[in-house]
Amino acid sequence: MLSLKDAGQPNIYPVNPNADEIEGLPAYASLTDIPGPVDHVISAIPAAYVLDMLEDASTKGVRSIHLFTAGFAETGLADRLQLQHQLKARADELGIRLIGPNCMGLYVPDGKVSFSQQLPTDSGPVAFFSQSGTNASDATYNGALRGLRFSKVVSFGNAIDVSAAELVNYAEQDTNTEIIGAYIEGMHDARDFYRSLRSAARSKPIAILKGGLLPSGGRATQSHTASLAGSGELWAAAARQTNAVLVHNMQEMVDVLVGWRFRAVPSGPRIGLVVGGGGISVQGADDVEREGLQLPALSDHTLRRLAEVTPVAGTGIRNPVDTMSLWDGERIRPTVDAVAEDPSIDAIIVQVGMNWGVGFFGNEELDTRQNMIAEIAEARERHGIAIAMVVPISIDHRHGESNARLARMISDAGLPLYYNIRDAARAMRRLLTWETRRVERAQP
Amino acid sequence: MLSLKDAGQPNIYPVNPNADEIEGLPAYASLTDIPGPVDHVISAIPAAYVLDMLEDASTKGVRSIHLFTAGFAETGLADRLQLQHQLKARADELGIRLIGPNCMGLYVPDGKVSFSQQLPTDSGPVAFFSQSGTNASDATYNGALRGLRFSKVVSFGNAIDVSAAELVNYAEQDTNTEIIGAYIEGMHDARDFYRSLRSAARSKPIAILKGGLLPSGGRATQSHTASLAGSGELWAAAARQTNAVLVHNMQEMVDVLVGWRFRAVPSGPRIGLVVGGGGISVQGADDVEREGLQLPALSDHTLRRLAEVTPVAGTGIRNPVDTMSLWDGERIRPTVDAVAEDPSIDAIIVQVGMNWGVGFFGNEELDTRQNMIAEIAEARERHGIAIAMVVPISIDHRHGESNARLARMISDAGLPLYYNIRDAARAMRRLLTWETRRVERAQP
Repeated sequence: MLSLKDAGQPNIYPVNPNADEIEGLPAYASLTDIPGPVDHVISAIPAAYVLDMLEDASTKGVRSIHLFTAGFAETGLADRLQLQHQLKARADELGIRLIGPNCMGLYVPDGKVSFSQQLPTDSGPVAFFSQSGTNASDATYNGALRGLRFSKVVSFGNAIDVSAAELVNYAEQDTNTEIIGAYIEGMHDARDFYRSLRSAARSKPIAILKGGLLPSGGRATQSHTASLAGSGELWAAAARQTNAVLVHNMQEMVDVLVGWRFRAVPSGPRIGLVVGGGGISVQGADDVEREGLQLPALSDHTLRRLAEVTPVAGTGIRNPVDTMSLWDGERIRPTVDAVAEDPSIDAIIVQVGMNWGVGFFGNEELDTRQNMIAEIAEARERHGIAIAMVVPISIDHRHGESNARLARMISDAGLPLYYNIRDAARAMRRLLTWETRRVERAQP
Repeated sequence: MLSLKDAGQPNIYPVNPNADEIEGLPAYASLTDIPGPVDHVISAIPAAYVLDMLEDASTKGVRSIHLFTAGFAETGLADRLQLQHQLKARADELGIRLIGPNCMGLYVPDGKVSFSQQLPTDSGPVAFFSQSGTNASDATYNGALRGLRFSKVVSFGNAIDVSAAELVNYAEQDTNTEIIGAYIEGMHDARDFYRSLRSAARSKPIAILKGGLLPSGGRATQSHTASLAGSGELWAAAARQTNAVLVHNMQEMVDVLVGWRFRAVPSGPRIGLVVGGGGISVQGADDVEREGLQLPALSDHTLRRLAEVTPVAGTGIRNPVDTMSLWDGERIRPTVDAVAEDPSIDAIIVQVGMNWGVGFFGNEELDTRQNMIAEIAEARERHGIAIAMVVPISIDHRHGESNARLARMISDAGLPLYYNIRDAARAMRRLLTWETRRVERAQP
């Protein structure tokens, strides 16, 4: 309820037979006591009472219910499975759509509905659907920190009614959605989902995380959302055929969504790596190649240009470009220009913080960073080249605020933020595969 | 110099011909003007003046010099390479040992010497040697956040005199060192290093990160520390033969050092995974298996024990154990006991924070966490089982302090801290391989 208040929802009616007031709002003994119409019910009552609540909702003319309530098929108990069947059958008879059970429900900023506090109240072009509430929170919370804003996020748990296929179909049609992500554990009709994927992926980029691909993960999906997980090979084939991007975990999911949203899709596999620090440059180069991309040697012309603006001691310019020019208002532009204009470079990764403590700089240095970020954003416009920004994170809180501000500056400038070079390279490689297939398909 | 002050060093003599005072200390025009003996010189002067400084140091009876100074062979310039040769030849004649050039030098808390501010002033059993200054900082800074303390850390750059082999030999003999890590870019005598590795690894665990294994990383080592990188196959074979642990990046390096230090070495591949959150449990299970470990189904006896203390709704106990008991002072002990006592479990991974924002709890909940951590630490003692703790991190600063305090509680309790389940599983798998080989070798 605090989440709904945070989202600015003006019409909240708490229902609880044992309270007169909840969080400052008048409480009602039952749904039928609420004055005026009710659009949507969020149920957090025990499973045993849900059938009764359904009747009240129907009386009240409700058409959609989100069942936060858990304790159905996912328990593995026969009577709970039976209860789930009864619930679905009765909801069908009454013409009520169910989200869940066993889920967090909806985050729709434009509708002033949210399942969590501290989420942005402004909306954006990303739709995310998840059978897991924690993963829905992960995408929205961690995505928001990197500038993602959402059209609709739906945590839909056991999915006894509203299904993954239906949600993907919806996102394909939704004019407020440009990018789609989904976390799936299992489904009753895989063919339906495949069809929805194939259709949606034709017009919008879509990333899928499939939980439970391995044996014990599969065991976990049963007790989590009562889902039977499918085989890894089938899902990989489905992703290839539809050109959906299959990721391995939520970190990679957000990495790919951020890449689409903030234009990290490279035009080819050849990366220019710009960092400040020798050890980082060596490891970063290894990481980029380990992820299947390339770091070509720069041309002699480029090297001459870089040499003009790069101090000779403690730096290297042969790609990776290890340079102190990153921290220099005058030198950052010619450095990025030289790399971007090299004919052998398709995309750039820039690491703008150290592996050891992001916040080795204080607030007073944020102006320098702001300038650096603005220069890099402008360079992207001039050269039309994909650029990924890297700011490592740590558990240290001493510089947490300047760090978070740096992250915000980067996403405010419309640049994609990653937490290390390996993650940026992995996302770019996935995006390149996606883009290559997309272009192939678009050809007559 | 501020680093030395931070470290509590009482005898600092700034040398600068153009200053009377530096940071509140009297400055001297040259080394020879310093009253009394000088044990160690830190040179940050331009490369062109280093030969003159060497003569002054010799006059003063100095036996060791750390050359922060860069601008030698790593520039790729013939005259700079020549200068490096001259420097080494003259130092040999004068009987002066050189650390570097092009490096951060020493962090030796017991000697009150440090290359960075904000590092702990207390020492510990880990030695770390690095050709890269940023990687030396990475290990010490990020290691310190997870409870690591150091005997000696040496950033040794171009390594024209003091070499990796010599440092590893030293660490093997050093009674204050129990665990060794090293970041290597290249070396003049690989056989020497192999011998040092083989000998040291017999008595102390040792982890190696080799930079520049791939082509462009190799190009980067040349301009970073003028090192020729070796082939990946050779290094992998050397690691197998010596039972050194080869890691891929600094994150994995710290993960492995933390594992040795805080007893995350599993007795076998079978993991019990305990988390609070369904999506995390599914992904975590996939991650554990993807890293080459197993999640066996728990016995019926264990399941009955877990069922007694686990709420039926929204949880799962079949391994992964997805339970709200983590946050419950009364239930955490029987939960961990049941998993630890299952005969099919060799080690446990516990995720004690959510993927979305570590700090979803406020400071007022830290007592609950303290209790949870104490219970887990005690369970480890009772059962003699390896346990890895997972607290995810994020760039969000809003709960940074409680987050950092949680991390400190975990390392203060002597437990190993990881930032996600995949990293914990990867470290445990590497540690298991190491332990298996160690036991094999110890047999007659």
